[in-house]
Amino acid sequence: MPALIPNISVDCVIFGFHEDTLSVLLTKRVLKDPKSRKIIFSDYTLQGHHVLEGENLEQAAVRVLEEKTGLGNIYLEQFHTFGDTDRLANEKDWLWTRMHYPEVHRHVFSVAYYSLVDSSRFKPDQKHPDAAWFPVKSLPPLGFDHNRMIVMALEFLQHKLRREPVGFELLPEKFTVTQLQKLYETILDTKFDKRNFRKKMAQMPYVVPIREKLTGKAHKPAQMYIFSKEVYEKTKTDNNSFIV
Amino acid sequence: MPALIPNISVDCVIFGFHEDTLSVLLTKRVLKDPKSRKIIFSDYTLQGHHVLEGENLEQAAVRVLEEKTGLGNIYLEQFHTFGDTDRLANEKDWLWTRMHYPEVHRHVFSVAYYSLVDSSRFKPDQKHPDAAWFPVKSLPPLGFDHNRMIVMALEFLQHKLRREPVGFELLPEKFTVTQLQKLYETILDTKFDKRNFRKKMAQMPYVVPIREKLTGKAHKPAQMYIFSKEVYEKTKTDNNSFIV
Repeated sequence: MPALIPNISVDCVIFGFHEDTLSVLLTKRVLKDPKSRKIIFSDYTLQGHHVLEGENLEQAAVRVLEEKTGLGNIYLEQFHTFGDTDRLANEKDWLWTRMHYPEVHRHVFSVAYYSLVDSSRFKPDQKHPDAAWFPVKSLPPLGFDHNRMIVMALEFLQHKLRREPVGFELLPEKFTVTQLQKLYETILDTKFDKRNFRKKMAQMPYVVPIREKLTGKAHKPAQMYIFSKEVYEKTKTDNNSFIV
Repeated sequence: MPALIPNISVDCVIFGFHEDTLSVLLTKRVLKDPKSRKIIFSDYTLQGHHVLEGENLEQAAVRVLEEKTGLGNIYLEQFHTFGDTDRLANEKDWLWTRMHYPEVHRHVFSVAYYSLVDSSRFKPDQKHPDAAWFPVKSLPPLGFDHNRMIVMALEFLQHKLRREPVGFELLPEKFTVTQLQKLYETILDTKFDKRNFRKKMAQMPYVVPIREKLTGKAHKPAQMYIFSKEVYEKTKTDNNSFIV
């Protein structure tokens, strides 16, 4: 592996959605005393790594995502670069960094990306034993400035969801109206009236009903839908409107 | 001045508006042969510089803006970080860089910001003789990947203008409906029907008429308006709506 660039990293806020919970994928970080092997501390961080020599920024983000989750070809968008001088000022972050990456500088600039997955697509396994989903509403203590990154990523996601149908990245391929409504309610942290939501949905030509119904014991069969990117691209307008 | 960080820079896309033209502030870059003082080439770049040791990223952007224009307290927003390995691959960019900043690395990551000013507020002067406004629609040849930066900054500006009243940063304090309409038309590269635009404007409670009229020989006196941030903050809603 080429050397890492000692002052540039990428961090990925990987959002997952399942049932009615929006989660973030985190990695457990454990610092052990090199001699006694006793645990000094443990906490969680986002999936991240330094950019390598000769690597484009975007490539680094894709690499981190694939290495840490095995997931390829998923939604990934750069949203902000964090560059305060005190990002590694917390003693445990600096201790951990020095022990694992002695070449790293004290002032690291981190380019943050967020990505969206149907969280049932990724379950932490033997290859990724330190990864775990945590609900956005009950995060564990996080290293570095990763809490701030998640807060900002969520704002970007909410903004995006109001303007573009990115939420579908978070749903299974086939979904019900109820699932779609829960997704919007969870991310926007609000409630929609069921009838009003169905009216809004009726105005989304790219949400296409299919010949299949979800059957279950407790409910009457529910119509399933898919999202058509093709229809979305053909029907989106709105380019010359503006909100007042 | 502290040493510069050899692989991290900031670049500012400074948009200015006047009459019906959207412009970008550029700096002339001249490379002379060190011995003969003959000009090897000249072109233009955005306002940019490396981040300095011990400086926060945001501070660097503010410093660049102030040093290059003298303008303080203006709208400034980070929009993207450019980190391809070939950003300095063009021979003249690399030559210029080596002659002026021999410590700079070949792979520089640049965090790009855009800012908005009423372009009549800044006129290139003796202190800033190399700065000049260029219409977005007729840019001169630019160094590095600065063309790409401007294209992307414009997309962010267009997006922002449709959602938030940032356009007012580009207008004089007091303006007419016609000026406001031209601003929207120019940035969004479209035409609005005059009556429809006035209807939209009537829905902006934060555009407040004042007791003053613009008088001129050719036209009948036109009502002047100001933008009230206070009214905007109090009246903005839209948080739970989403576009379909």
